[in-house]
Amino acid sequence: MIWIQRELELTSRPRGFHLVTSEVVEALPELRELRIGMLSLTIQHTSAALALNENASPDVRRDFESWFDRAVPERAPYWTHTLEGDDDMPAHIKASLLGPTLTLPISGGRLALGTWQGIYLCEHRERCGARSVIATAWGEA
Amino acid sequence: MIWIQRELELTSRPRGFHLVTSEVVEALPELRELRIGMLSLTIQHTSAALALNENASPDVRRDFESWFDRAVPERAPYWTHTLEGDDDMPAHIKASLLGPTLTLPISGGRLALGTWQGIYLCEHRERCGARSVIATAWGEA
Amino acid sequence: MIWIQRELELTSRPRGFHLVTSEVVEALPELRELRIGMLSLTIQHTSAALALNENASPDVRRDFESWFDRAVPERAPYWTHTLEGDDDMPAHIKASLLGPTLTLPISGGRLALGTWQGIYLCEHRERCGARSVIATAWGEA
Repeated sequence: MIWIQRELELTSRPRGFHLVTSEVVEALPELRELRIGMLSLTIQHTSAALALNENASPDVRRDFESWFDRAVPERAPYWTHTLEGDDDMPAHIKASLLGPTLTLPISGGRLALGTWQGIYLCEHRERCGARSVIATAWGEA
Repeated sequence: MIWIQRELELTSRPRGFHLVTSEVVEALPELRELRIGMLSLTIQHTSAALALNENASPDVRRDFESWFDRAVPERAPYWTHTLEGDDDMPAHIKASLLGPTLTLPISGGRLALGTWQGIYLCEHRERCGARSVIATAWGEA
Repeated sequence: MIWIQRELELTSRPRGFHLVTSEVVEALPELRELRIGMLSLTIQHTSAALALNENASPDVRRDFESWFDRAVPERAPYWTHTLEGDDDMPAHIKASLLGPTLTLPISGGRLALGTWQGIYLCEHRERCGARSVIATAWGEA
């Protein structure tokens, strides 16, 4: 059994949905040593999320933003946690709808994703710094 | 440590929510050898999802379809990714709300699910073929 | 490799979002023995969920309840599964939006969560008993 664990710092990005597959994989060269295994990613924040979706068209990622902004509106009359800005409470809800973790299979030293799947960093705040992700991989050499 | 990894092909189903627990378990007879372990399922598509919900009443699965169709409407004015059909962009959003993976415990050679829990294939496209799922199990004999 | 598996019984709580990080961690003292590892939590019910979100302000958890109650309304005309109460079918949908599992990293004998992250029990029924969660941990001593 091989275990790898590392904190990745995803560079600060504007509000929106961003493809980070390459950034994640390049930070974990040891994945190549795993014949069969798993990679767990956990974002250590409550106003951003990780998702797996279409990796080709920027339109898709823009439409994610449009839908989530309508589904979880800012300045709704029922928000009571408003001290941290209009985008804060919607960001918490969006983060839990999408989820803070991805648990992904590794096969033959590579992430076993579908052709059109890529890892999204879902950034729900207007202004924030880099985002920390704990990457843990385990498997057989 | 035992590792098992296999690609499962879930047969093509109409748009809707479908119980696939038996189909998944029967394709993985080696799970019986695991005293303690985990099973990870990852669907390799961006317009279908996996979920764990009520395994008894077809009404529940129909109501899932009703709610998701209203929550993520087709032909909304804010969609810009429209070339692949009216059901395409809503399918991407629904897929990320439900999620592409399940990571489930194995106990005494069986999935340790609750009495009423079953695995759903959430099919969000009108027309598509079989769906590929990477199953990875690991644990102690 | 160390494996730990145990059924946790989370005490009955009223409908709403509840912080249960301490209750979970105190039930699993063996996590301290894991230098690197993972903890999987699976709730064995279809009308409650687990999530990871803000651990400080009760306002945030109240606003979760407000948003989910509006997004998935009771007594909507499209519900057909209505025999088990007004809160039943919305509870199933909410449970799948939030998800039944958390798969979390362990580092140096502790859950490697962000400063503001806590584990939520998302209870979507008005009346229910204790909730069963299967905890499975694995890793290196």
